Amino acid sequence: MNIAFIGLGNMGGKMAHNLLNAGLTVHGFDLSEVAIAHFTEAGGIAYANPQAAAERADVVITMLPAAKHVKEVYLGENGVLAVLKTGSLCIDSSTIDPQTIKDIAAVGAKQGIQICDAPVSGGTIGAQAGTLTFMVGTQSNAFERVQSVLKPMGKNIVHCGEVGAGQIAKICNNLILGISMAAVAEGMALGAKLGIDPQALAGVINSSSGRCWSSEICNPWPGISANAPAGRGYSDGFATQLMLKDLGLAIEAAGQVKQPLLLGGLVQQLYQQLCMQGNAQLDFSSIIQQYLPKEA
Amino acid sequence: MNIAFIGLGNMGGKMAHNLLNAGLTVHGFDLSEVAIAHFTEAGGIAYANPQAAAERADVVITMLPAAKHVKEVYLGENGVLAVLKTGSLCIDSSTIDPQTIKDIAAVGAKQGIQICDAPVSGGTIGAQAGTLTFMVGTQSNAFERVQSVLKPMGKNIVHCGEVGAGQIAKICNNLILGISMAAVAEGMALGAKLGIDPQALAGVINSSSGRCWSSEICNPWPGISANAPAGRGYSDGFATQLMLKDLGLAIEAAGQVKQPLLLGGLVQQLYQQLCMQGNAQLDFSSIIQQYLPKEA
Amino acid sequence: MNIAFIGLGNMGGKMAHNLLNAGLTVHGFDLSEVAIAHFTEAGGIAYANPQAAAERADVVITMLPAAKHVKEVYLGENGVLAVLKTGSLCIDSSTIDPQTIKDIAAVGAKQGIQICDAPVSGGTIGAQAGTLTFMVGTQSNAFERVQSVLKPMGKNIVHCGEVGAGQIAKICNNLILGISMAAVAEGMALGAKLGIDPQALAGVINSSSGRCWSSEICNPWPGISANAPAGRGYSDGFATQLMLKDLGLAIEAAGQVKQPLLLGGLVQQLYQQLCMQGNAQLDFSSIIQQYLPKEA
Amino acid sequence: MNIAFIGLGNMGGKMAHNLLNAGLTVHGFDLSEVAIAHFTEAGGIAYANPQAAAERADVVITMLPAAKHVKEVYLGENGVLAVLKTGSLCIDSSTIDPQTIKDIAAVGAKQGIQICDAPVSGGTIGAQAGTLTFMVGTQSNAFERVQSVLKPMGKNIVHCGEVGAGQIAKICNNLILGISMAAVAEGMALGAKLGIDPQALAGVINSSSGRCWSSEICNPWPGISANAPAGRGYSDGFATQLMLKDLGLAIEAAGQVKQPLLLGGLVQQLYQQLCMQGNAQLDFSSIIQQYLPKEA
Repeated sequence: MNIAFIGLGNMGGKMAHNLLNAGLTVHGFDLSEVAIAHFTEAGGIAYANPQAAAERADVVITMLPAAKHVKEVYLGENGVLAVLKTGSLCIDSSTIDPQTIKDIAAVGAKQGIQICDAPVSGGTIGAQAGTLTFMVGTQSNAFERVQSVLKPMGKNIVHCGEVGAGQIAKICNNLILGISMAAVAEGMALGAKLGIDPQALAGVINSSSGRCWSSEICNPWPGISANAPAGRGYSDGFATQLMLKDLGLAIEAAGQVKQPLLLGGLVQQLYQQLCMQGNAQLDFSSIIQQYLPKEA
Repeated sequence: MNIAFIGLGNMGGKMAHNLLNAGLTVHGFDLSEVAIAHFTEAGGIAYANPQAAAERADVVITMLPAAKHVKEVYLGENGVLAVLKTGSLCIDSSTIDPQTIKDIAAVGAKQGIQICDAPVSGGTIGAQAGTLTFMVGTQSNAFERVQSVLKPMGKNIVHCGEVGAGQIAKICNNLILGISMAAVAEGMALGAKLGIDPQALAGVINSSSGRCWSSEICNPWPGISANAPAGRGYSDGFATQLMLKDLGLAIEAAGQVKQPLLLGGLVQQLYQQLCMQGNAQLDFSSIIQQYLPKEA
Repeated sequence: MNIAFIGLGNMGGKMAHNLLNAGLTVHGFDLSEVAIAHFTEAGGIAYANPQAAAERADVVITMLPAAKHVKEVYLGENGVLAVLKTGSLCIDSSTIDPQTIKDIAAVGAKQGIQICDAPVSGGTIGAQAGTLTFMVGTQSNAFERVQSVLKPMGKNIVHCGEVGAGQIAKICNNLILGISMAAVAEGMALGAKLGIDPQALAGVINSSSGRCWSSEICNPWPGISANAPAGRGYSDGFATQLMLKDLGLAIEAAGQVKQPLLLGGLVQQLYQQLCMQGNAQLDFSSIIQQYLPKEA
Repeated sequence: MNIAFIGLGNMGGKMAHNLLNAGLTVHGFDLSEVAIAHFTEAGGIAYANPQAAAERADVVITMLPAAKHVKEVYLGENGVLAVLKTGSLCIDSSTIDPQTIKDIAAVGAKQGIQICDAPVSGGTIGAQAGTLTFMVGTQSNAFERVQSVLKPMGKNIVHCGEVGAGQIAKICNNLILGISMAAVAEGMALGAKLGIDPQALAGVINSSSGRCWSSEICNPWPGISANAPAGRGYSDGFATQLMLKDLGLAIEAAGQVKQPLLLGGLVQQLYQQLCMQGNAQLDFSSIIQQYLPKEA
């Protein structure tokens, strides 16, 4: 198995590292010289453009910031589809809209190239530890092959459905996540203001019907969840601006199919407000700041 | 232990039944003759007013629809505080605002009567089975006694803090619950419209950061959670109008302490809209109807 | 015509002054000694309680903070209904829920006393100048008499319908006002951030379909509307906490008739947030602060 | 003056007609044969593509559905910029995002071609009657020339600022419009449910601080505003899906500059919900349906 890895940033670089650690040959490309330097130090082979990296590969993994970069890497001037052989496999782990990857997969299918989506959850910590969750959208007959490729990078590889289903699962999950985090922030801040001990309140919620990932694992009130960003000034978490990006994808996808997102539409703007106020890099659980009086 | 039980309706009647089953003597009152008939059939002793029932008791439990009834039963013309002896214990399991029970407890304290709040979760099914969760607000030195009284009716008796803390915990929990249910409804409806299989989507969410009680135990999409109301036409659940009542308590309490509930304020109105459209009696997970095209 | 005026605060004191200026005899009551002092200086006759003032009157005007005060003044221990003669007229200019005044009017009707609601708009400036708008709810046959009483205090006396209709009109108007002000704040802040000159933008809006009282008369962007609070640090306007009170009345009344207020529910919480942040006394157009980056 | 008019649909066709009526020569293009037929009947000269039409012209007017069409017509394969002479003037009256027209204008500027934006309000009725409002974004020195071109089509030609300012003004105006319409719908529906006569209520609002274009000119309650869509089943108005498009532009532009639109984010989804329920073609004042009980 010869792998080309396009996009060696905060996430992609760590993921490629795990492939190299597993003894695989990885041909890589990134626009950043720093990213390339880390990659070659770890044993990767760097190329001047995506196409050059893909020429040596039968599997391509992409991890890119947005849909336009994904389109460019697959279909653009130095795009990989132009050089891949029939029977190749491409896995896009970027978080983008479902339609874009469906469109690209349709182009690939004409050339006998299987393209699937496999966005991740788990953040840079999961990328480093090789414990990411991959939400895979692909034809059933390709899933086993996808699984074998992703195995060194993740501990949880879920087949969500046909191409695009991985992206759909991710944006729906993160839509719920973004709303429930704000809900927990409202509830914790209300309880504290009303005089209940936040620890006691969290205890009740987490053993009752209000419990959710945001109340248990990443409670926005400092000191509730062990190791949550709230305990370290909301640093080193899932940045508010990334949550904002994912909510934007949800709302865009919803608009395309004429589906209303009443809470989603509001909560997107609340995270936007948080970013405007200078908190774009903080963990999204810092939304609780909107519910606390400003410090003197 | 001689118990007076005031309020023998859907919840209170079943709770009193479990006390009788435990071999306790229960003096009861309710305005409804039907409720009284069920109570006496089960071995309870009925009285013409709350005071008459309380005269025979050293423990009073109240389970009433709203704050005004609670005030009336404790402080009104035939109120129980007028006849209880020093050292008596009163437990209010109604869901009301935290301030009202604090005010009543202050009156009781002057007479040497301990009054605490212990609202429940678990619904009529939990009431019948004796598996309710009680969220108890009381001074620490009274908690053990409260626990021994509530034991025949619940499996989970949580000490939340001082008087009022039980109500605070409940309204904060239900605030988060009401929002997260609507969030799951939005996410499931979006995913389904985008073409992912709802079972697969729920699977991803429930093993990821979107998971919550509303996605796991009471998923609003039919057929996902075993025994959830969604699978039986949203019947026999937590009625939308009761969720609406609890959200109203959260917003009222928040207003008293000048705390904003941005999502709470919106979601209250969404459940209000659902009630206006004739769904007040359906389980609150029927909020998903607002995200589905109307049937032809 | 002998008038009793109960409630001589910021609004009521100025209104009573205009009655005195018109040569009328005014018997007054207020809890505040300062208010009483101003009133007697202007020629009013002060009493120790509402009842004492009302005994000398055939017309009672009330201007009080909230429904509980109104109930107390009409129906309480020293309430005015106990001493008024058949044929008396009572006008409540407080802003309260519609149901309370209907209930009080029903009591009055049994004694042959006509009670109507006449909440005002125009603020303390209008109260001083005698240019208030009165929104009157009363039987048609009493409107002429009400008009003659209110004339020295207002320039616009509108008959809205039966008792309670004045309050309904006011809360519906202020609901729209509270939302449209926030809408103008969003639009002006967006335009400015996108680079259009705020003056030019306001010019377009005010000659187009976005125009409203909030964009024309009280634009939240400083320097657009002559004499608007935005031009003087949002001072001396309609305090955010009063807007919050009126939105609370709207939402309470809506809840009683099972009517959803989706934008109203959200906007109430936005003003609540503004109050939490220390701006309760500022004009409600200061909501625009939520749309501007915090100053360094 | 030789004019090329690209986009002869519902709006553009009527606008071109008014230019022809003013005795001008108009070279036109549209993809629809029906549109072309109406145009040539009225005296226009039709061409096979935008470029062919523009070759004969020194002024180009475009009226197209979305940004991608505008980009294609100016910069695409048969784009007009390739054939226009130095000194030509282009006026885009489409409603699109501000950035696209700025980008296109920058390309034009290099060729000495002035390109400006002039989106309209007034709908198909204003287009037919020649009474549109044009919101013009252009350098000051070009405004007079723009005005002379637009005069036969509009009665109100406003200079909003530099290129893009017309689009900014339009999306900010329509953002406020979309919110205030929903606000009026909430207020009117609430008042009616509380029992006030809708005519009386509208009268109070329109002479008070709740008044706005949506309450006066286009009240969503049937029978209030003369000639409003509410009086004819919400037909022949500003289609909900067009309001939805404009709100989408506002939110997209706001996202680009990190500006939150809290009410805008919610109201977009409310109109989306209305479209999902089958009302995309109805006037956007039909949003009031969300506040009324469903008919039996």
